[in-house]
Amino acid sequence: MDAVRFELIKKDAGTHARRGRLITPHGTIETPVFMPVGTAATVKAMRPEQIAEMGAGILLSNTYHLFLRPGHEIVREAGGLHKFMNWNGAILTDSGGFQVFSLGALRKITEEGVSFRSHIDGSKRMLSPEISMEVQHALGSDIIMAFDECAPYPADRRYVQNSMARTHRWLARCKAAHTDTERQSLFGIMQGGTYADLRAESAKAVTDLELPGYAIGGLSVGEPKLLMYEIMDGCVELLPQEKPRYLMGVGSPDCLFEGVERGIDMFDCVLPTRIARNGAAMTSQGQLNIKNARFERDFGPLDPNCGCYTCRNYSRAYLRHLFKCDEILSSMLLTTHNLYFLIKLMERMRRALDEGTFSALKKQFFADYYHGEEIS
Amino acid sequence: MDAVRFELIKKDAGTHARRGRLITPHGTIETPVFMPVGTAATVKAMRPEQIAEMGAGILLSNTYHLFLRPGHEIVREAGGLHKFMNWNGAILTDSGGFQVFSLGALRKITEEGVSFRSHIDGSKRMLSPEISMEVQHALGSDIIMAFDECAPYPADRRYVQNSMARTHRWLARCKAAHTDTERQSLFGIMQGGTYADLRAESAKAVTDLELPGYAIGGLSVGEPKLLMYEIMDGCVELLPQEKPRYLMGVGSPDCLFEGVERGIDMFDCVLPTRIARNGAAMTSQGQLNIKNARFERDFGPLDPNCGCYTCRNYSRAYLRHLFKCDEILSSMLLTTHNLYFLIKLMERMRRALDEGTFSALKKQFFADYYHGEEIS
Repeated sequence: MDAVRFELIKKDAGTHARRGRLITPHGTIETPVFMPVGTAATVKAMRPEQIAEMGAGILLSNTYHLFLRPGHEIVREAGGLHKFMNWNGAILTDSGGFQVFSLGALRKITEEGVSFRSHIDGSKRMLSPEISMEVQHALGSDIIMAFDECAPYPADRRYVQNSMARTHRWLARCKAAHTDTERQSLFGIMQGGTYADLRAESAKAVTDLELPGYAIGGLSVGEPKLLMYEIMDGCVELLPQEKPRYLMGVGSPDCLFEGVERGIDMFDCVLPTRIARNGAAMTSQGQLNIKNARFERDFGPLDPNCGCYTCRNYSRAYLRHLFKCDEILSSMLLTTHNLYFLIKLMERMRRALDEGTFSALKKQFFADYYHGEEIS
Repeated sequence: MDAVRFELIKKDAGTHARRGRLITPHGTIETPVFMPVGTAATVKAMRPEQIAEMGAGILLSNTYHLFLRPGHEIVREAGGLHKFMNWNGAILTDSGGFQVFSLGALRKITEEGVSFRSHIDGSKRMLSPEISMEVQHALGSDIIMAFDECAPYPADRRYVQNSMARTHRWLARCKAAHTDTERQSLFGIMQGGTYADLRAESAKAVTDLELPGYAIGGLSVGEPKLLMYEIMDGCVELLPQEKPRYLMGVGSPDCLFEGVERGIDMFDCVLPTRIARNGAAMTSQGQLNIKNARFERDFGPLDPNCGCYTCRNYSRAYLRHLFKCDEILSSMLLTTHNLYFLIKLMERMRRALDEGTFSALKKQFFADYYHGEEIS
């Protein structure tokens, strides 16, 4: 039996949205779910149990970063990533593909894999389907991702087609290299860029392998949002109902709603944690930047409708002070708030799906958060 | 009645050490005590309740920094420093004197006070006894410190004498400006550098004002430790038994023991928090630096004899990884550990004083921590 199983609980009446459940070796996760990102085996500025207390049951961590530092053998010797980073919930690791392709001139693609120079010390390294599997086996994450190429946007059709075909060959190699399916589950990733016919071809190639879950890769890489939604619509139709669907790298509130509405079950993004370190907070009334002078004497909480640790205990004036002083506590408190905001937003979406009120929730949220503004 | 009172509980038989108790408007603090430093209204990298949970009952915060940023009027409007920073324990604020004198060429001393350029924006500012009192009144700290000059080391006798005499005149002005003694208690600071006769003169001048507590200033500013201990011996003799004695800016384990042994009741220092951010940990076997290559595959805790959050949950290998990746969690976990270490060390000293075993504890600690090495 696969390490990770998906149960479809309910389909929304008015949309393609669904309520489901991921059963993993490290707990059961209600879906749709947002996964906080812990790149280097830490969600930046958070103690892990603070994230668990908010209700998060699954984190994402990055194979590329851990492969380079501290090295997967050290994580293996530590007893795996869960033990190493003191996180008893589920973990999904990406394959390292996205990061090595982002290295641009520092990497070279062959059929075998990708050779590249480490961004840390310039040393020559290699990732391939087999190496990515080996690293993720050492990490011991519950869900491991196939080694793929995420084609850039824009990219011409021939490039995307060749890249996609290679990604499919690599997926077969990943599957062959991943034998202990009872310990970890391998998810496949569809590619195909913004070309609908390539997306269809990719969906068939990937789902033919009958994997326990599927990701939509190659979106949210710079294309207009309306185009992303259009491609997403096409992709989701081609994926089986009984398997979880993961939209990689997406985490803005509008995209979470649009993704859920289209039938996505899993999301991850550095957005809430990264913008927190830059002083930005997601609130029920929209995003605000705490360094704004208007908060200098604002002794109210970040978000009067929020029950997070930060909002219960600190004022905007204090948070602005911390940010301006470049205090570590600023990152700690804003990260706490933003993660809480997104985790509770997903909870609200799940409850709305349970109660058949998802579309109403979406409409109200957009009115409150975006105030009717165009989102691009 | 004074806001802060001191109760002398017990005098050690073999040394000048004492057990006591500070009763403040924000709780009772057992002495001798180490006060963590929260310079800009935050103990760097810590949530305040994490410090309280370790057993800390009093923090130090810096008038100079809060005067410049966010400005004491904002803290006053926030309801005072306790509320602003979400700390319900006691707070001691320094006077700003030490920091403005450290500005060197950027400051100018007159009888009135010190005019200086802000290190943040270069703006022209002024601190004087009256202004320091006003700022500390706005902050609302339980213990406020007199505005003094901490003379550098080395300094010639004439400089120290003039500076000390002015500090005494400033102390009288501080006392005159501080009328609400039931809300906040003003502590005086003796100076006199390394000159025993000037120290005696300062002790008399300061204690003649019958303040609720006295600090020894001008030590731990670069002089050899043996000279510091010698001066300290002389100072403590001249201070009344029934008032608390505060040695400013001291926090290395050896100096804490030497200070307690000589009859000091209160200490503060940035040492544990600052070295934590540089990767250094205080352990029962001495100080270690986590970036050392020998910890790469060390899956044991920082200190096997420590019960802190960090040692209960993380390995040296993980902490080294975090430090090398410049992760915020590294500062969070090492600060947690170092503060716990010093707070528990003071607890052990107090228990040893209760039980009459202080000298034995000191001997054992030095053997374990310093391994018989010379400490300079």
